[in-house]
Amino acid sequence: MKYIGLLLILLAGPIWSQTDDKEQLKAIYNASLAQGKAYNWLNYLSNQIGGRLTGSVQAEQAVEYTKQKLDSLGLDRVWLQPVVVPKWVRGVPEFAYIESKPGITNNVPICALGGSVATPSAGIKANVIEVNGIEELEKLGRNKIEGKIVFYNKPMDPRHINTHEAYSASVNQRSSGAKEASNYGAVGIIVRSMNLRLDDYPHAGGMSYGDTPLNERIPAAAISTNGAELLSTTLKLNPEIKFYFKQNCRQLQDVKSHNVIGEIKGSVYPDEIILVGGHLDSWDLGDGSHDDGAGCVQSMEVLRLLKLTGYVPQRTIRVVLFMNEENGLKGAKTYAEIATNKKENHVFALESDSGGFTPRGFSFDCPETDFAKILLWKPLFEPYYIHLFEQGESGADIEPLKNDQIVLAGLLPDSQRYFDHHHSEIDTFEHINKRELELGAATMASLVYLIDKYGTASENTGADK
Amino acid sequence: MKYIGLLLILLAGPIWSQTDDKEQLKAIYNASLAQGKAYNWLNYLSNQIGGRLTGSVQAEQAVEYTKQKLDSLGLDRVWLQPVVVPKWVRGVPEFAYIESKPGITNNVPICALGGSVATPSAGIKANVIEVNGIEELEKLGRNKIEGKIVFYNKPMDPRHINTHEAYSASVNQRSSGAKEASNYGAVGIIVRSMNLRLDDYPHAGGMSYGDTPLNERIPAAAISTNGAELLSTTLKLNPEIKFYFKQNCRQLQDVKSHNVIGEIKGSVYPDEIILVGGHLDSWDLGDGSHDDGAGCVQSMEVLRLLKLTGYVPQRTIRVVLFMNEENGLKGAKTYAEIATNKKENHVFALESDSGGFTPRGFSFDCPETDFAKILLWKPLFEPYYIHLFEQGESGADIEPLKNDQIVLAGLLPDSQRYFDHHHSEIDTFEHINKRELELGAATMASLVYLIDKYGTASENTGADK
Repeated sequence: MKYIGLLLILLAGPIWSQTDDKEQLKAIYNASLAQGKAYNWLNYLSNQIGGRLTGSVQAEQAVEYTKQKLDSLGLDRVWLQPVVVPKWVRGVPEFAYIESKPGITNNVPICALGGSVATPSAGIKANVIEVNGIEELEKLGRNKIEGKIVFYNKPMDPRHINTHEAYSASVNQRSSGAKEASNYGAVGIIVRSMNLRLDDYPHAGGMSYGDTPLNERIPAAAISTNGAELLSTTLKLNPEIKFYFKQNCRQLQDVKSHNVIGEIKGSVYPDEIILVGGHLDSWDLGDGSHDDGAGCVQSMEVLRLLKLTGYVPQRTIRVVLFMNEENGLKGAKTYAEIATNKKENHVFALESDSGGFTPRGFSFDCPETDFAKILLWKPLFEPYYIHLFEQGESGADIEPLKNDQIVLAGLLPDSQRYFDHHHSEIDTFEHINKRELELGAATMASLVYLIDKYGTASENTGADK
Repeated sequence: MKYIGLLLILLAGPIWSQTDDKEQLKAIYNASLAQGKAYNWLNYLSNQIGGRLTGSVQAEQAVEYTKQKLDSLGLDRVWLQPVVVPKWVRGVPEFAYIESKPGITNNVPICALGGSVATPSAGIKANVIEVNGIEELEKLGRNKIEGKIVFYNKPMDPRHINTHEAYSASVNQRSSGAKEASNYGAVGIIVRSMNLRLDDYPHAGGMSYGDTPLNERIPAAAISTNGAELLSTTLKLNPEIKFYFKQNCRQLQDVKSHNVIGEIKGSVYPDEIILVGGHLDSWDLGDGSHDDGAGCVQSMEVLRLLKLTGYVPQRTIRVVLFMNEENGLKGAKTYAEIATNKKENHVFALESDSGGFTPRGFSFDCPETDFAKILLWKPLFEPYYIHLFEQGESGADIEPLKNDQIVLAGLLPDSQRYFDHHHSEIDTFEHINKRELELGAATMASLVYLIDKYGTASENTGADK
């Protein structure tokens, strides 16, 4: 059946090549580039509010601000969805140095990883064992690790063209390095920042202790790539040097927060929901412009662009700004639970959470028949230099909606600069290019338009029947 | 004949799909991303030497530095080709203000356009007539223009996806605005900077007086886009306001300079030359990192990458760093003249002169049979997200080599950020991303490899016969 469906779609020919689709896409891109609001909205989120760590005052200000902006768009409904979220705080800035001899120290930039415990108030000073990834722990054994700080120094491999692949291949050091090292008696871990460049910015990011008992949890920090190079060189000269670090982070009681939601009701199939979204929370070191202020304002802009170009959606188009993607995914989980309980029918969900860079295409997680149908639209995007229609992961916030029928998609922006900024103090508005951000919003709006107009392959409604 | 040739090529099938081509491209990209030198070379050119205006000490330092670096690569021959070049100098910085009432002034950032005459030493103060492009001069007529400063304020149109198209549609204001305005008795011109953003940086660039007699030439300056907005708004409130500007630029005697050239002699067809290049000169406000330090170091890197990956070229691979692209093209013209005189056989030339951003593909100016052949290689580039193989212009420096047989090509980097920097004081090294630069070099080296290995369609030698 699946293949017959696919065949029918392929035989149906270029249903998308109608002049009005070309014109609608052109109208969307023109509106985004010449009358866009995403850049101004992001300016406010970034420069007037700033970093939006889950549970912070700034995160709540962002909820208020984006709701207010959605209210101004004349949507059919705008609301806040309550979510209970964790509250982890950094406390006073971290401090660290390499002690090559007693009294001879070099300060190095570090930051606590999100979810880490603090050091004792006097800090930790210990010898260091450098490893090139988690795999090396077992070879070294408890003998060489116990009582030391484990220094994870596996770099992101520059030979990947897609930098997210380089990230995936190294990030387990950060996410589960502390848990693994504590099994061998380590007293703390220092992780090379997930960054392809050499610079002085430590990059935050989430980590988990898994089932490690509370009293066995060891503090975990990221060190800048230049700091990691210095530490590694110093260790090569003298393996007996010591490393000192002190951090003051804490896990507080859970607090209340919100997902921010707005929608245009479908004119023909109001019960079929097309979701577009990003996450409103960010790490605290920068202002979260790329991760993921960009995705939020682009998602809001999708609804605005559809209205501005006079398009009346057949299906319900819903924007969701998820809370707490970075350290808990509570917004995403709560949203999916409520959707299930309400028996809501999500036919499509698109997330933008890879930065506000020049869009290159989409990654789709969907049935084969849908992918085949979507591929037929690819030529419509060529004038906009959108060329990647891949099968793969979509986005962390929409992943909980996955089922046999839904089409999930992620926007794929150019990835070269993403990890220069990601989770660091230089994820800031000055590194956003207005046009790149606007092209992303237009690309998302164009796909949403096509999905709305022609439906997905697995549903029994839609203009292509 | 042409079409038979094309047919034969198409029928020949995927001659390029050999595993060794895939492996060679992978080796080139790996070498560029993991062992690249382009970024370090550009760091020196930009931060140790700086802006390289033709005829300046810095331009000569760049000649010396790049020759020395080519000498270090173990090429078969490296030499300097003498070129006589114009020498235009900016003098002390320009100064300008809007005078809304006598004594009430707002300073605005301007810069003299390259090739402009100075104002009288006391500057020029006059009423202003704003136009939306050269076409409006005729409608206004001498009556409304005489004695005034013409303010060209046609913006670059943000709706173009390729920003070079927006540039082409507006740049005649800058290049021939002074000549045209002087025909109607204007005393000077102020041109909105060729920039899609609103910011405070005036953008330099070349202009020409054509056959306007020396004593009728009027001074020409660019104003920042924010300055242009302010001037326009002020004029709307009161058309009688005055504008003052003073600039001190001068055209001096021509001086001697050089193109910098290096080559690997072809092992089979040494008389067939494959040229890769960029231009060594730049404007003086920034350090010329994107325009065109990037193209120079990428071109040098092409030869290094071929050597580093152990490839032995059949044809002669020559890098040429042209002098004086920005205001005279004397390096390009001299190179082409000498090539003609020596009856050199250039089969292919590739220029990188659109910034060091993520490469997207190439523009080809060549016979149809060649383009058809080259298109067959496109799948080899897909793993590197190179998707644009277009027919169009190549590059200003290689254009003089054009004949019926040569294949000319230009690297097409992502164009969104180019005009933020182009010719302004923020064309600087901090705006270069190492990976983007390196991907460009690898993309160029890969095409050079394929052209060398399989030859162009119009020649009677090469591995595909």
